[in-house]
Amino acid sequence: MTEMRTLKVALLGCGNVGAQVARILIEDADALAARTGARLQLSGIAVRNVNAPRDVDLPQELFTTDAETLVKDADLVIELMGGIEPARTLILSALSNGACVVTGNKALLAQDGPTLYEEADKAGVQLSYEAAVAGAIPILRPIRDSLSGDRITRVLGIVNGTTNFILDQMDTTGAQFADALAEAQRLGYAEADPTADVQGHDAAAKAAILASLSFHTRFALDDVHCEGITSVSASDIAAAKEAGFVIKLLAIAEKLTDANGKEGVSVRVHPTLLPREHPLAAVRGAFNAVFIEAENAGELMFYGQGAGGTPTASAVLGDLVSAARRLVLGGPGRTETTTGHVPALPIDAATTSYYIGLDVADQPGVLAKIAQLFAEHGVSIEIMRQTIHRDAESNVESAELRIVTHRASEAALAATVEAVKGLDVINSVTSVLRVEGV
Amino acid sequence: MTEMRTLKVALLGCGNVGAQVARILIEDADALAARTGARLQLSGIAVRNVNAPRDVDLPQELFTTDAETLVKDADLVIELMGGIEPARTLILSALSNGACVVTGNKALLAQDGPTLYEEADKAGVQLSYEAAVAGAIPILRPIRDSLSGDRITRVLGIVNGTTNFILDQMDTTGAQFADALAEAQRLGYAEADPTADVQGHDAAAKAAILASLSFHTRFALDDVHCEGITSVSASDIAAAKEAGFVIKLLAIAEKLTDANGKEGVSVRVHPTLLPREHPLAAVRGAFNAVFIEAENAGELMFYGQGAGGTPTASAVLGDLVSAARRLVLGGPGRTETTTGHVPALPIDAATTSYYIGLDVADQPGVLAKIAQLFAEHGVSIEIMRQTIHRDAESNVESAELRIVTHRASEAALAATVEAVKGLDVINSVTSVLRVEGV
Repeated sequence: MTEMRTLKVALLGCGNVGAQVARILIEDADALAARTGARLQLSGIAVRNVNAPRDVDLPQELFTTDAETLVKDADLVIELMGGIEPARTLILSALSNGACVVTGNKALLAQDGPTLYEEADKAGVQLSYEAAVAGAIPILRPIRDSLSGDRITRVLGIVNGTTNFILDQMDTTGAQFADALAEAQRLGYAEADPTADVQGHDAAAKAAILASLSFHTRFALDDVHCEGITSVSASDIAAAKEAGFVIKLLAIAEKLTDANGKEGVSVRVHPTLLPREHPLAAVRGAFNAVFIEAENAGELMFYGQGAGGTPTASAVLGDLVSAARRLVLGGPGRTETTTGHVPALPIDAATTSYYIGLDVADQPGVLAKIAQLFAEHGVSIEIMRQTIHRDAESNVESAELRIVTHRASEAALAATVEAVKGLDVINSVTSVLRVEGV
Repeated sequence: MTEMRTLKVALLGCGNVGAQVARILIEDADALAARTGARLQLSGIAVRNVNAPRDVDLPQELFTTDAETLVKDADLVIELMGGIEPARTLILSALSNGACVVTGNKALLAQDGPTLYEEADKAGVQLSYEAAVAGAIPILRPIRDSLSGDRITRVLGIVNGTTNFILDQMDTTGAQFADALAEAQRLGYAEADPTADVQGHDAAAKAAILASLSFHTRFALDDVHCEGITSVSASDIAAAKEAGFVIKLLAIAEKLTDANGKEGVSVRVHPTLLPREHPLAAVRGAFNAVFIEAENAGELMFYGQGAGGTPTASAVLGDLVSAARRLVLGGPGRTETTTGHVPALPIDAATTSYYIGLDVADQPGVLAKIAQLFAEHGVSIEIMRQTIHRDAESNVESAELRIVTHRASEAALAATVEAVKGLDVINSVTSVLRVEGV
């Protein structure tokens, strides 16, 4: 048997995921070599402080603060530092040196992906980032390769475990947002500063990546309309539940034709009602899932753990072995295709169904007035349900009206809601939420 | 812009899937060229009868009965004839000519895969077969590439839509097997001769393919223990339902250590009880899904349409575009790794939980007797539930006992069931079914 080639692997960053990647590279070295056709030698781990405590016991001599030198000497570079700089400069340096790069840096990819892809193309090496979206779930490679002969029409993703855990807690226990967030923080599902998760920014970066691969066009973070879950109340959840829905924070990318007949893609993140029988509705706790609709394949769903050191490390290692196999076999890396050239559409061009909760005056003719107003705005009502409450003590009656619309443009729906607010028979608009999957 | 290279595509077979593949190759030619970097020109379709009626209107001049000549002149060959010969000879001829081959022929792969893989390796070309397992669902590529840095420990798959439809019908309507089968035939979900589906042979071929990729070892059809669903009765389904389970035909491949400490893989197909909250339990109708457990990734599930011309064509086209991209980029194809070298274990070495339904004498001490017998065989009982029925007219009481065991070896469980049958307090053993996911 001929001696196996050795490939040098530089690891940048040793946090939650990085430490597990290092552990697996060392512990599973023989199995990884057998599958790759080359030994993957961890040549060093670049960190800010070589003496910081780690989750995993790793050989001290691997640690260095000199990331530049480590990168220069590597065949494969794994970037798990996060943030924009110095990650960006180090990745570009690795690519131009001819190293394949594996990264999980969704913020960098969403902000400056095109620069990285172009550098990888120019150098003829692979840049892979499966870990950047939905942790352990193989989703980017299936979109890029398995569905390359199909036309994806729509992607709906639960891609942020923190917000899914919070919404699931609220749904299960009836808790308010603040209490569910506190519970998520106690259990380690939410960070001390939860802004990036609960405001939807993390999901928005992933939405840009999913949309780019699905529609063969490069979308950036600016193309994504983003709403978080901080304003979702316990009563929204309860009302949704009663109507047979569950509220999820979805990353959505879908092909649309706007009012002027212009084709484009709407990329957005917002709390969304889903019918309880929809496959995504069953995705509980901190799990992630991506639901894809394609012209030929029909409906597909990919489900698994969206975060966590060890699960995410699985995605990093999968990219690493695939890139290393390519180095062993020879031949250039596989590049993205960006021949779609479809524009990102503004949120106003999106069409969706709406769930609207109204506190209305309990008097004859109210339903007719509201229905007429919807009709005037070209928004068709699918379900309209009125519930009368009578306060036992005061004997005062109040009426609650719940409306689910057919799909209409965001613009028409926003105008309708504005007009509804002006009606004298309306006490208040209690909730306005988008609906998918109906 | 330089002129794009043209790659000649030969299609063998024009049934349900083949006709859709041809249609998409023609209709989506521009989009496919943009994604591939080369034009994919359908050079001909080999069929037995050029004048047979087709599902899709295709140019008559494409049809030929001369498959050999078509293959000789092709860069890419799509084999969708099914069956062993002439498919096998044509694929080997294509590979040795240096053409990449895409096939959906699970029977051929399960029976003679190694010969094909070796020929592909020798020629340095790609042999891909995503369509062979679970139709439109991207599952083989994720296992081979995305999970290549992980260790899969277990695969549970609903990989036959016909049997899933039948079992789902029985579960939903309470129908007997024969009636549900007739309904499946009426709706086109089952063939006139349903043997390959209902006896589990189709699922067994897919189990062999899933196990081979998951455990980096070539397993053949002979390694798969196979039981179909013909003996699943309406009362089995009803009893399972009452106990919180659903019955699914599962293809299972799992890593085990047998009683002698020998490591191996158990590959099997049999009707299986799953708790209703298990992700696979929600897979309804003719849908397919594959549930994977991996050391690092944890639990993953892939869900979608497992059959049908258009969905399966999506998987074929995905393989085709991927292979064509490789031809355009240059460099050798990607080969399977078979360095796992784990043996297939016989069904006796498998460990599983069992659900056992017993019709027992209604007299004191019966439960104790049965419990003792299980203990003697080293099988631990998880749940034991007795229901007493009293016939209103005769006033005769009968007792039904339902037992769910903890995981134990198939051998121990079989011996226990045999021994139970010999007890004088047992009127009959009404059902014996394996349980997973508890």
